[in-house]
Parts: sequence; C-alpha cells; structure tokens
Amino acid sequence: MRAVRVHAYGERPAVESVPDPVVREPLDVLVEVGAAGVCRTDLHIIEGQWAGKSGVALPYVIGHENAGTVREVGAAVSNVRPGDKVILHPLVTCGLCRACRSGDDVHCENSLFPGIDTDGGMAELLRTNARSVVKLDDGLEPADVAALADAGLTAYHAVRKAVPLLYPGTHVVMIGAGGLGHIGLQSLVALSPAEITVVDRSPEALALAAELGAHHTVAADGNHVDAVRDITGGKGAHVVLDFVGENGTEADGVAMTRDAGSYFVIGYGGRVDVPTIDIISREINVIGNLVGSYNDLDELMTLTAQGKVSLRTRTYPLDAALDALDDLDAGRIPGGRAILVP
Amino acid sequence: MRAVRVHAYGERPAVESVPDPVVREPLDVLVEVGAAGVCRTDLHIIEGQWAGKSGVALPYVIGHENAGTVREVGAAVSNVRPGDKVILHPLVTCGLCRACRSGDDVHCENSLFPGIDTDGGMAELLRTNARSVVKLDDGLEPADVAALADAGLTAYHAVRKAVPLLYPGTHVVMIGAGGLGHIGLQSLVALSPAEITVVDRSPEALALAAELGAHHTVAADGNHVDAVRDITGGKGAHVVLDFVGENGTEADGVAMTRDAGSYFVIGYGGRVDVPTIDIISREINVIGNLVGSYNDLDELMTLTAQGKVSLRTRTYPLDAALDALDDLDAGRIPGGRAILVP
Amino acid sequence: MRAVRVHAYGERPAVESVPDPVVREPLDVLVEVGAAGVCRTDLHIIEGQWAGKSGVALPYVIGHENAGTVREVGAAVSNVRPGDKVILHPLVTCGLCRACRSGDDVHCENSLFPGIDTDGGMAELLRTNARSVVKLDDGLEPADVAALADAGLTAYHAVRKAVPLLYPGTHVVMIGAGGLGHIGLQSLVALSPAEITVVDRSPEALALAAELGAHHTVAADGNHVDAVRDITGGKGAHVVLDFVGENGTEADGVAMTRDAGSYFVIGYGGRVDVPTIDIISREINVIGNLVGSYNDLDELMTLTAQGKVSLRTRTYPLDAALDALDDLDAGRIPGGRAILVP
Amino acid sequence: MRAVRVHAYGERPAVESVPDPVVREPLDVLVEVGAAGVCRTDLHIIEGQWAGKSGVALPYVIGHENAGTVREVGAAVSNVRPGDKVILHPLVTCGLCRACRSGDDVHCENSLFPGIDTDGGMAELLRTNARSVVKLDDGLEPADVAALADAGLTAYHAVRKAVPLLYPGTHVVMIGAGGLGHIGLQSLVALSPAEITVVDRSPEALALAAELGAHHTVAADGNHVDAVRDITGGKGAHVVLDFVGENGTEADGVAMTRDAGSYFVIGYGGRVDVPTIDIISREINVIGNLVGSYNDLDELMTLTAQGKVSLRTRTYPLDAALDALDDLDAGRIPGGRAILVP
Repeated sequence: MRAVRVHAYGERPAVESVPDPVVREPLDVLVEVGAAGVCRTDLHIIEGQWAGKSGVALPYVIGHENAGTVREVGAAVSNVRPGDKVILHPLVTCGLCRACRSGDDVHCENSLFPGIDTDGGMAELLRTNARSVVKLDDGLEPADVAALADAGLTAYHAVRKAVPLLYPGTHVVMIGAGGLGHIGLQSLVALSPAEITVVDRSPEALALAAELGAHHTVAADGNHVDAVRDITGGKGAHVVLDFVGENGTEADGVAMTRDAGSYFVIGYGGRVDVPTIDIISREINVIGNLVGSYNDLDELMTLTAQGKVSLRTRTYPLDAALDALDDLDAGRIPGGRAILVP
Repeated sequence: MRAVRVHAYGERPAVESVPDPVVREPLDVLVEVGAAGVCRTDLHIIEGQWAGKSGVALPYVIGHENAGTVREVGAAVSNVRPGDKVILHPLVTCGLCRACRSGDDVHCENSLFPGIDTDGGMAELLRTNARSVVKLDDGLEPADVAALADAGLTAYHAVRKAVPLLYPGTHVVMIGAGGLGHIGLQSLVALSPAEITVVDRSPEALALAAELGAHHTVAADGNHVDAVRDITGGKGAHVVLDFVGENGTEADGVAMTRDAGSYFVIGYGGRVDVPTIDIISREINVIGNLVGSYNDLDELMTLTAQGKVSLRTRTYPLDAALDALDDLDAGRIPGGRAILVP
Repeated sequence: MRAVRVHAYGERPAVESVPDPVVREPLDVLVEVGAAGVCRTDLHIIEGQWAGKSGVALPYVIGHENAGTVREVGAAVSNVRPGDKVILHPLVTCGLCRACRSGDDVHCENSLFPGIDTDGGMAELLRTNARSVVKLDDGLEPADVAALADAGLTAYHAVRKAVPLLYPGTHVVMIGAGGLGHIGLQSLVALSPAEITVVDRSPEALALAAELGAHHTVAADGNHVDAVRDITGGKGAHVVLDFVGENGTEADGVAMTRDAGSYFVIGYGGRVDVPTIDIISREINVIGNLVGSYNDLDELMTLTAQGKVSLRTRTYPLDAALDALDDLDAGRIPGGRAILVP
Repeated sequence: MRAVRVHAYGERPAVESVPDPVVREPLDVLVEVGAAGVCRTDLHIIEGQWAGKSGVALPYVIGHENAGTVREVGAAVSNVRPGDKVILHPLVTCGLCRACRSGDDVHCENSLFPGIDTDGGMAELLRTNARSVVKLDDGLEPADVAALADAGLTAYHAVRKAVPLLYPGTHVVMIGAGGLGHIGLQSLVALSPAEITVVDRSPEALALAAELGAHHTVAADGNHVDAVRDITGGKGAHVVLDFVGENGTEADGVAMTRDAGSYFVIGYGGRVDVPTIDIISREINVIGNLVGSYNDLDELMTLTAQGKVSLRTRTYPLDAALDALDDLDAGRIPGGRAILVP
C-alpha cells in the first residue's frame, strides 16, 4: 500500500509503497483509511519534538486522525464487521486497566498510539483494535469527520471538562480559533449557556467565530487582556481555554482568569510560569488537557450527526501529503484542517 | 485595650494600648479574644510582602487566627449571644453575593479580612460579624482551637478538595508536615482511605507524621522524588499536597504527581514553572488553595470535637507577641503553632 | 393597601383593604408589587391542602411569585435601594445556616415563605428581606418575570439538577408542558444537548413544545409509554422530568426511565409506589424537587435577559384575582401563567 | 466436576456430577473455584423469584460469589495467567459499550451473570472472562474474600455512592447489620467521617456493629424511628442505607431521612410507596443500588488487603451445599456468610 513514512527527524517524510498491515490478534481491526487528518503534531513529530516521548523506531507511518471502512476483523471482535464506516479513537487501549474501566481510556496503562508510537493512518490501511472504532451515523462520511478524531476530540474533551463550571451568567474565553478552536467553539455553543469570548490574531478566524456563535471577539493586538477584563466586568473569565499554549498566551490566559477560576491548557510549546502566591491568593487552577476518551468521541459524533458541529476542511490526495504538511506549516489553512484522501 | 500593631513594614510591631473597637453595624459581633494564632503570614505581613495585596492603612492590629467569647452583638444578630464561646472564620463576609451563597464565602465580593486588611485579633477585643462566628462545642476552649481558624482551615480546605480524588488504592503525598501539614495529615486520615506519604526535612516532623497515621515518611534529602516514585510503583501520586510552595518543592511536587493527577499548591513563596507540553501530555492539574470556607471551619470543629484533629501549640502571653514571632521566624516551633493568650 | 386574603379553607379568598406592611428588621426590604403570579399551589392552599404543612394563622395574604420595585430598606441592607426593580426569591432566608451557606437556601433552617406561611404578594406591598431580592436587568419588567419566581424557578431547578446527567446522545422526557413545563423545556434547550421528548394530553401544549425546541412530542393517549420506548431505542430515557406527579404519571414516569436512570418528581398529588426489587435490579433513582435556590433564580433571570427563556402570561388586575384563580382551576390558561397586576 | 444445580423452581437443587466447562472464546478464563458464597439471592432463585428476570434454561449451576485460581486462559487474555489467585466480578462484560467504558460495567449492554443467567460457581470449575478477574493480594486467600464478590460488593457500592454526601457532622443510618450490612459498616468507617447509627432487630448484630465502629446502635423495636430522630437532633439522617428493603423498613427508612436527604435501597422484597407531595416538599431522593462495578471490587479488595474490611464466614464442603442453604434460610448464620469450599 501507499503510506507517508518518517525516515529521519528533521527530514521530509516519504510517500512510498510499504507492505500491508494484517490482522494478528483476536481483537484487531483492519481499516481501509477513508480520510486522514493532517495536524500540527505531525509537524512536531517530523521535527523530532516527540522523539523522546514516543520512542518509536524509524521509519514509521504517521497519521493519527483517521476514519474509514472496516476491511477485516479478528476472531474476538463483536462490535463491528467488514463494511462498517468508522472513525477511530486515536489510542488502541486494553479495556482492562482502571483507566479504561473508568472513562479515562486515554490514560490506559497498555496503550498504543498509531501515528505516534506505531504505524498510523496516512496510508491506505491501518491496523487498530475493537475498542477504538466508533461506528458512523448513516449520514456521515469518513472525509467529513476524520479531523475530529484527534484535533476535534482534544477540543471537545477540554470543553466537556469545562462545562460543569459554566452556568448561566459565567464567562468563558477561548484563545485561538483555528483548527481546534472552531470545534471547541461549536461544542461550547452546543453544551453550555456561558457567554463566549474568542481571542485570536486573525480577523478571518474572528469573523468565523462570530458566525459560529461567539458573543464577543477580541483581536490579539496587545490590549486583549484589558479587553477581556472589560467584557467580564473587570473580573476575568470563569474559564479560559488556551488552544495556543505558547508565545505569551500562557501568561495572558492566567491574567484573563477570574479568582477561583480555571485556566485550561490545550495548545503547547511554551511554559506556564506563575508565582505560588498568585496561585494561592487567587485560588486559581491550571488544568491540563490531552485528547478525549472514546466516550468523548462518541458524543462528538452525536453532535456532528445532529449538525451541531461541522468541520471546515481542505482535501488533498494521499500522494500530495507533503503539500498538505507544507501548507499547514506555512499557515495556508486558516480556521480549517487538511485531510488526506487515499 | 492592648494590641499588637504594625506601624511600618520592615520594622518590629508594637505591643501597645489602643482604643477598644465597638459594635457599629446591625450584624457586628464584638469578641473578647481568648487566643490568637501566630502564623508565618504574620511574618510576611511585617516584611511588607502583603502590602500591595491588602492595601491596609498603617498602623493596624495583626492577627488573623482567632477564638474567644462573644461580648456584644448588633441589633440584627440572631445566631450568637454574649457569653458564647466561638472560633472566628477569618473573613467578614456579606452573605449576599454568589460566592457567599454557594459555599465559597472566601471569594465574597465584599469581604474584610481582620488581621490582613483591617484590625485583627492580636488584641483583647476584635470586631467581626455574625457570619464569621462558629459556636464551639462545650468540650472545646478558644486556646485549643484558635490556630485552626486560618492555618488549620487552609490545610483542611485543601484536603477536602482532594478527598473526591482519593479512593481506596490511591496515593497522596504531603510535602511539609509542620503547622499546617500536621492538621492536613489528621484531616486526611479522618476523611480518606488513601495511602499517605509525608515528605519533610525534619526527622521530628516525620516522626510526628508517622505517629499521626502517615503510612510512609520520606526525608527530603535530595532523593525524595525517587523515593516517592518507588512507593507509588513508579507512577507518582494521584494527589500531591504542597504545604511549602518554595525552595524547589514546586518542581518536586509536579515530578511526584502521577499522569492525570493533581498538584495542590498550599504554601507559597516560589513559582510553578512547567512546560505546556508536560501539562498536556501528562494531563496534570495545578490546583490553588486559599483558606477554607465557613462550612469547612464548621466541619473542622466537628472533627476537633470528635478528637480526630488536635493541635500542638505553644502558648505566649499577648505582651510576649514579639517573642512568639521571633521563635516562629527562627524555626523554634517545629510541628506546632504559637498562640497568644491575652 | 388592597390584598387577596384567605379567611377560611375551602372558601373563596377576599380581595380587601388591609394595613400596609412596614420595615421592622435591619435586613427587611419593602417592595411595591409589580406583578404576582397565580399558581396551582394557590388553589391547593385555598382548599386547605397545605394547612398542616404551613401552620399559617388565618386570615393571611397569599401570592408567592412576586416581582416589583423596592420602596424602602432596613438599616443593614446594602444590596438594593429604593427604586430598584427586583424579582423575589420565594423564601426569606437567614444566610447563617449550613443550607444557606452552601447554595441550598431553600432548606434554610430559619426561613419564612411569604404567601405560604406569612403574608405574600397578591397585594400592593410585600415585606421580604435583603437575601431574597434579585435585581432585574434593565431590559426586564416585573410583569414579564413574576411567574418565574416560583413556578419557573421550580422547573429550572429540576432541569439544573438533571443537566449533569444529559450528555450528547442521552434522552430526556418531560411529562407535562404547561406552566412549569414550558419553562423547563426552554431551560433544557438552553443548558443541555440531550434529545428531548415532551408528553402531554393537550395538542396545543405539544404544538408549543415543538415550537420551543422539543425533538419529539407524544400525545398522552395511553400508548405514550410505548411511544417513549420506541423513541429511545427500547431502553427508556436517561432522565424523566414529571411536571404532573399524579393521575398515573408516577407509574408512567418510572416505566419510561432507563435502567440506571433517574425519575424526577416535580408535580404532586399522587404517589410513587415501586417494588424494591425493581428499584435495585434496575438501579433507578427517584429524585425530589422543590423550588430552586436564589442562585438558580439569578441564573434563570440571566437566561431571561438573554432571551433564551420567555413566559406566556395572561394579565389580570389585582381586584380580579378571583377570576384568575377560577380560570386556572377550570383549565382556561393552557400552557401559560396568570399574572396579577396591582 | 461436582456442581450444585437447580432442576426445577421450588425444588431442592442437586449436588451432582456435570461435564467440565472449557475455554471457548479468546477472552475466556477458566477458574478452579476456591470458594463460593451462599447468598439470600440463591434462596430467591430456587424459589423462582428470578425466573422471569433471568430467563435461564434449567438445569443450571448456581453460585454468583466466587473466588479461586486461574486454570486456563483464552488466546486474547493478557491480564492473568494460570496459577493466579483471583476474585471474580459477578458479571461477564463486553468492555465495548458506553457503560463498560464509563465505570458502570454492571449496566453492560451485553453481559452474562454466572450463577444467575448462566452456569455459576457452586462447582469445581467456572468459566468467566478476562474482564471479570481481580488478582488477589498475596496476603489474601479465595476463602477469605469470596463472599465479598457479590454481597460485600453490593454493600460497598452503596456506601461508595453515599460517601460524597457524608462530610463531618452528617448522620448516616444503616438498617440491617447482617451479611451485607457488616461489610457496609466497615466500608463506611474506612471511607467516611459521618456519625453512624445501626438499626437491627438482633442484639448480636448490634453488638457486632458497635464493635466494628458504629457510633450508635438502635434496636428495631417499634420506637426506632423516634430513636433515630433523637440521635439526629430531630431532623433525621442525611443518608439512610436500607439493607433490608421489606417488612416496613421502606417506610421507616423514608421517615428517618432528613429533608434534602437520600434513602438508599439495597435490600429488596417490599415496596417504596410515598406521596409525591412528600417527595417534593421534603425534596428527598430514593436511590437504587445494584451490585458494584469491577473498580468497586478492586477497591474493596484493597480495603480487605489493608485489614480495614473483614468477613465473618462459616465454611461448608461443596457437597454440603444444601445444608448451607438450609442454615441461611433458617437464620442460623447471623451477621455472617456461608462459604462453600470444593
């Protein structure tokens, strides 16, 4: 099959022919990839930023946002059959550890992460397992939803954790309304009655945010912390969701957070650096957010099938994967996501 | 009356005679101070560390951990009468704002903090209001409990927030088993089935911790992060309660925290400084903790009356307040609290 | 002033002149009633159904859903001033007990309930206290919101308690879409992504429900339990909100509830009667719901100011109070609420 | 192998030789039964009370509280190996449905319940699956813990759900301190700071309860509701755990519950019958409780290994199963549990 493989960190991946993966274990599921999302994390992987954390042996196939059609299943698989359209939870999990058994499968003690630490989905075929597959509603196609499998799921997960803090009359700020942010925004509108302020550098992103239901939009022009203070009656927001996590949004995000409020870190690259006297005297929380659980993905697919969440995507053929990566790196896919279609 | 007043930051307070406070408002309560705790925050106030945050006009009476006997009440006070023994919640709150109405009176929008931003309790008399007074069980005396009003309450509050995370089989680490920590430890033992590890530099503090129910004690000798890793099966603790918050405990605390776990900041002086990639890839939380609510104080008094929490204190006459402050500053009150008795 | 007073149970109330109430206590607030809702509970009071529970001495002024303008305040009132437009939380609470301090003021240990156990608001003036007044947004008038003070607040409170159970993909059934139900429905739409089914006998009520956002409407024609089973894939709903609570809805409601689901009782008059083997083998919950808290009312006013909740009301002059009560009793105010305007 | 089988409802089971079960599916686990608990539910099964709910084909092997040693595992089993000592969660679950993925595997959409709807563990061998096995701590033996697998787990589950309601100063009442109750009591003592009152008819059960940490014991002599009112300051308990659920405890339990409190149904046989006006005016909850989840069982094993929970059991050889059932039926195993050992 054709696949996009990293051979050396710091070098361009190759689009090349590799052997097909096969079903090996009773719970394996082999999927014909219908669409694979292209994510900023792919750029970070290629740069080598994840080398230490993943420990993956090169070369390997990247691509951790996948949807497609089941081709073959192992002997113990009971929940899908060949021909089913599915989106794949990014992790292959065990189902037996405490985390898997309590709705937190992302912290499975025995997981694999295709596209990060084993072969992923920028390819024609992908091997995953029975616990990763969410069947798609009849009205949804793999290309419509693939980019929700990781980026969208991460945004949804953070929003889902924030929702219990967001009763009527509260304020929530989103920093960054790009690929993740615009899914987060739609999720917020669907799940919460809070007043939503979106902060971004890009006028296009802000215009899209307003269209998707943001109550206030603020240009990240240096006065944005003050602008958020004004909108929130001088107190800051109950929740700040930072989809950027670098280049100063970390300090801005903490400054925009109300006393007794919570600053959610979703994007990464920078540092959170706060004096402990501020943490305690303001009694604020810094909340880490990784990708969502299988149940989160199932809920996000429900919202998508109901038309409450939709993606802006640009499609590339699998063989044009390097173009898609270049366009993403150069900021030529604003407010949307690139999708590879084999 | 006699009182301990700060006249200038960086200088020693004066123990001097000042006019008696009087009942002014319908909800005022005038209390004969039976005991006033001496706290590290008093040292920080004297140094000027709180000058900007409190904005208090000098001179003023310090002392924010108080218990005593009601002398006089305003016209609208219905819950106590002269002669009642009481411990005082440190804040004088309004009872009308959202925070007061939802169990979070510490974030009252209209509060005063006697001893911080208005006259406190290192004195013979203190003015507070009806919302601050917790009646003492017959078996308790002001001198037994005064130091629970702020330091103990802060420790209890953090523990109370952590308890929902601590089911059987979980691990909790406490960094620091001094004045706050030994109350936190007793509260943990009373409220939680978790396995408790206490980390401290002082062998005496560790011995006391073991006596009070810690399952493991670890000397803070440079290998303590590894020691905690070993105790927790290489994974770190589900919850780390940092009663120090400076001199490197911030980084140690984060390192001791398990993936998906929470690091609670209680002590202060240093900085929390963590790369956002670690916050998100480990999905950890940093939880700020201020003093507890009135309800927290009420619960802590219940535990005290039941004999589940008790304080180690050293008593000084009010006129020896400066000796008490000196002893605290010099580390001559290990594992306990100094109390001024008028 | 003019007022509607009950002189004897089972007899028609009198609309008559009575002495004006006055400010007596420091926290008292005297309100010029702008609008008073007429509620089914008023009929039950007149019948004597609440006589034992309230213990009120006759004659007294009924009316427990009130909004208006502050005329005068006691010496300790800091949150409102004469001229402020307000809606009144139905209970006059102490602010000092555990319930008041933890967001559950409805269970205040020292409360009064004007219109139930002391003089209420079907009158020109009403005495309440500082803790009961919610200031109205500039865009809202007392007559627009009065019926939210009790009926609407009860519906909102039940919805608010149910929302944490209602993630995307869940089902909620509302039995009864009358005065309370249509507020409950708007609140559900604003706060939850769940799929909503409304069951009612009245085609008009169902048509209004569909207009307000119900995803399914079911006529209560004897096949409604089966209809709900079909809509919910044979499993029943995660949450059933019963705004009727009599005439068989109790058994229907339990039958419509999914295993591990919750049946919320809001209306009353009948009995919940379930074998314990069903309660345990199905692991279902029966959740009681009284009127909401002050914070609930504040949130409901936010939703109203945002245009997310609105009332269908019919207005009567205060002197026509008996007509309003008769119309309500005769079912001549379907899907709406009667309001008295002095 | 030898096994205890029901051939016809209303008749005595047979202890007889039957074919050995074998590993069939990749996730199957075959266990040599070390101990099987004898439970009141077994009596109910034999009487036919569960015939409709289980739909099991006769004859079949009863026994739903099992522990033992792994003999053989299927090809996809990774978490245990032959020779491991295990206790079995009573349900065989799929690991793929929403319930299994969110800590609520008891409501698995595809479960089997050995001993209820398929062959159980009153036998020498039992087939279960990989998701049901909890490895035992080295210090525990199957015969020590078998009766915790269902009866103990049910008691623990109810306590675990109640614990968030039980802060210092709250009251909890347990009705019934027999086989389930004495596990519930030990769990309460380990997990909660609440004041515990135990109500039972048997002086022996009350004496055992006092020994295990109950703060008050009350004889169920007809004045017990008043006695609980007195202990709770006239208000009733925040939580009532009813381990009986018949013969009037249902009404007593509701009467002992404080306004805004919760009545937990654990035992069964009777009916909960309450006017809706009481449910709403008192805002009380009725909470159903089935057996606990796998995670609950894992936590209960932790408490057992820590010595915080222990069972009083009487051992019978497997071939004396009918004697054990007779003794249980005749009330000759007070405050304890019968265990069959092959």
